[in-house]
Amino acid sequence: MTSAYEQLVARLKRAHYLGTISGLLGWDEQVNLPPDSADQRAEQLALMAELHHAAATAPELGRLLAELEQASANLDDEQRVVVRRARLDYDRATRLPGEFAAEKARHSSASYHVWAAAKEDNDYARFAPFLEKHLDLARREAALQGWGDRPYDYAIERHDPGMTAAKVTALFDELRAGLVPLVRRLDAAPRKAHAGLFRGFPVDAQKEFVEDVVDRLGFDFGRGRIDVSLHPFCEGAGADIRMTTRFDADNPLDAIFSSIHETGHGLYEQGLPLARQGTPLGQSVGMGVHESQSRLWENQVARGRAFWRFFEPRLRKAFPAQLAGVASDELYLAINAVEPTLIRVDADEIHYNLHIILRFELEQRLFNGSLAVADLPAAWNARSAELLGLTPPDDARGVLQDVHWSGGAFGYFPSYCIGNMMAAQLWFTALDRLPGLEDDFARGDFTRLLGWLRTNIHEQGRRFDTLELVKHVTGEDLSPRHLLRYLEERYAPLYL
Amino acid sequence: MTSAYEQLVARLKRAHYLGTISGLLGWDEQVNLPPDSADQRAEQLALMAELHHAAATAPELGRLLAELEQASANLDDEQRVVVRRARLDYDRATRLPGEFAAEKARHSSASYHVWAAAKEDNDYARFAPFLEKHLDLARREAALQGWGDRPYDYAIERHDPGMTAAKVTALFDELRAGLVPLVRRLDAAPRKAHAGLFRGFPVDAQKEFVEDVVDRLGFDFGRGRIDVSLHPFCEGAGADIRMTTRFDADNPLDAIFSSIHETGHGLYEQGLPLARQGTPLGQSVGMGVHESQSRLWENQVARGRAFWRFFEPRLRKAFPAQLAGVASDELYLAINAVEPTLIRVDADEIHYNLHIILRFELEQRLFNGSLAVADLPAAWNARSAELLGLTPPDDARGVLQDVHWSGGAFGYFPSYCIGNMMAAQLWFTALDRLPGLEDDFARGDFTRLLGWLRTNIHEQGRRFDTLELVKHVTGEDLSPRHLLRYLEERYAPLYL
Repeated sequence: MTSAYEQLVARLKRAHYLGTISGLLGWDEQVNLPPDSADQRAEQLALMAELHHAAATAPELGRLLAELEQASANLDDEQRVVVRRARLDYDRATRLPGEFAAEKARHSSASYHVWAAAKEDNDYARFAPFLEKHLDLARREAALQGWGDRPYDYAIERHDPGMTAAKVTALFDELRAGLVPLVRRLDAAPRKAHAGLFRGFPVDAQKEFVEDVVDRLGFDFGRGRIDVSLHPFCEGAGADIRMTTRFDADNPLDAIFSSIHETGHGLYEQGLPLARQGTPLGQSVGMGVHESQSRLWENQVARGRAFWRFFEPRLRKAFPAQLAGVASDELYLAINAVEPTLIRVDADEIHYNLHIILRFELEQRLFNGSLAVADLPAAWNARSAELLGLTPPDDARGVLQDVHWSGGAFGYFPSYCIGNMMAAQLWFTALDRLPGLEDDFARGDFTRLLGWLRTNIHEQGRRFDTLELVKHVTGEDLSPRHLLRYLEERYAPLYL
Repeated sequence: MTSAYEQLVARLKRAHYLGTISGLLGWDEQVNLPPDSADQRAEQLALMAELHHAAATAPELGRLLAELEQASANLDDEQRVVVRRARLDYDRATRLPGEFAAEKARHSSASYHVWAAAKEDNDYARFAPFLEKHLDLARREAALQGWGDRPYDYAIERHDPGMTAAKVTALFDELRAGLVPLVRRLDAAPRKAHAGLFRGFPVDAQKEFVEDVVDRLGFDFGRGRIDVSLHPFCEGAGADIRMTTRFDADNPLDAIFSSIHETGHGLYEQGLPLARQGTPLGQSVGMGVHESQSRLWENQVARGRAFWRFFEPRLRKAFPAQLAGVASDELYLAINAVEPTLIRVDADEIHYNLHIILRFELEQRLFNGSLAVADLPAAWNARSAELLGLTPPDDARGVLQDVHWSGGAFGYFPSYCIGNMMAAQLWFTALDRLPGLEDDFARGDFTRLLGWLRTNIHEQGRRFDTLELVKHVTGEDLSPRHLLRYLEERYAPLYL
């Protein structure tokens, strides 16, 4: 006879595998889909979403959870984690009526196209009613979930379990206070990275170099691959992790750093316990922790001197003519270029945090009613001037620049910055626990760092919430001071 | 209120889309899957197979069919075709118990691995009990379907609706009688195509040439793509047709002709009425008709002088140095090389038919009990000597060479040869109805032929059975004499 726990796991795995199939359809859509097949893919995705929802909300799943909760004394620690997280997921899935999910999906699809056209035409007024409706949907969703009095907390908690707007505010206030003076000093510094240093880097050679980097960082190509798409991303689960990057002959650093960023996500996914796949113990904690992994590899590791001590000779070997006139110092400065920009996705790792703080502040005001949708562009532009020292010349390069709000993805932006703070905090902990770590990097060896992340982060699955995990691994609460220290130590010697 | 017919179509489409998702997972497995992800993909495929089976056997589908059959006077012609074919599919799906399907799937998986090892080790005895069990399963399956007295007819009819072993026997007897003398004359001819004419054809340039050919034949890259896999195939449906090919620097003709072959399949799929997708009117007739499309383009069209009048200059432009020493006549002879071989998949388009006749005869004897599984290798070798003039030196190059029987795919081989006969018959009909057709080819224009196939074959969906369709299009019953005439006219002038 199969135990109730085994039945629960089987049902969770079923829902999980349905999700992985949707994931593959989504990956294929970005990487392979013939241009006129979008409608057919939409049909397939809608069907899989329906089947996934049915599996995730099956009454029998609820019955098994109730039975196991009653008899929880018979469960071991791991089983209790699985039941607790599965209950959360089950309740969240069952509390949303199918009609609500369908309405949100329809509105997101319509909004996306309106947003794209509004951005193209610099016409915020066209997008405004769709944003308004998304805010309404977000409030209704929070109410359905029992968070009616704290809809923005719900939006944040969805992405980073255990996190609240108040906690984010406290972290961001402290970060902003330290960051703005550093940014002012760097922006005023006479030294600048060379723009346009890189021209004519053949894509095939870039691809080879990138694959070597990804391989050396520890990504297992037996259980994943890297392809090309318009926007880099990482998708997949278990034994099949699909990452993407993109190539531009005149911007090799974009391919290198976006690949390393996605590799951070991919290493996390590959490090989740395979035997627990489909259960919460085989799942990532949330967006912030995920981002901490991508940022740690992209920034703390791959923008450092030790990393380039190993890879610079290889890069020069791959592109001897292209780099002949580029001195080592110039190359390293370009890798750590600092320049204010209006566009979040183009921002360096310092300014990036200000872009996030701006969005968080505005989202908070939209949700608490102190800012009307109609007044959002003016508020955006004013805050941009204050935080970044730049005023968008139009809404396309301001409030309309990001895709997120067109999908109603509120509470998502903070995760990026939570990830940045967490990455820096993990970094200093790793440096402390693993003496001589950067000497490893200079030899092209990243196994000690990866092993440490595996044990402390990846193999934990969803055992901890975001903040619990940080405390568990680093011994202290999440704090922005590690990120501030890291940025100061990396950038001040280069520019000041 | 939705009519019963609309409900039927919605349910058929649902099952169809589930099938297309499995198809994409299968394509991805051959084209992209990381080496250590096979188990995970197997889980996904098993789940999709279960969901597809549930959708195809839903009791509500049976109820709708019964309701529509009762009120069939209210249906138009197209609707009647849909109901009739859907009834056939529904009955076939529901007659097979889930446990039987699972037993067959398990046995096929086990057999595949045993077959691969037996072929590797030239050890037929190891495979024999698995083949025996597959024969038993095939007989049981036929009995479950109500064909207990004619299990081999059922195996054939599954691949080519309306076809029987007796009809195939009559066709193949006549074909063999004409073919064997032609083969003997060709094999004895002193003129031979140069082996090893092609060396060092860069894969990138091959790829470009192949894509140009595929495009000019009329494949719509807006609704499909061509990739690389170990064994070329065509998968997909509706607006998303995925073909594959393979490249060998020393064998460019393999990539060219396997791509054209798959393009024939792809054009058929792209020509099925998109608005009827998911219903029998949007489906292909069967294996033989499908093969007629791939063979027509591969052989009648692409091995002809007119085709190469257009493409030879392009091939020489793509590979000027590699083809510098190859005269036009040598190239054309290599394209139409004739040589007996033990291996079916390496056979030229003449000998190929003898390989099929051999397999059909042996399958028939296995099913009617006149040949025991233990005696199969000896029977194979004897018949090979008689038909091909070659005796396999071992079973790996004899009875173990094909994958089909390891999956219990009896009755499948005849379709290849039915396709060859049908292709030649369609070809002469097209030449008759479309005067100056080959002049089009010499200008790189294939639109008239494709348009004719669209109207007469592709757009018919599953309206007709295999033989009905041949009669409908060509005005006469399927006959091997067109294939014999075509082979004589193409090869006699070249070699005799």
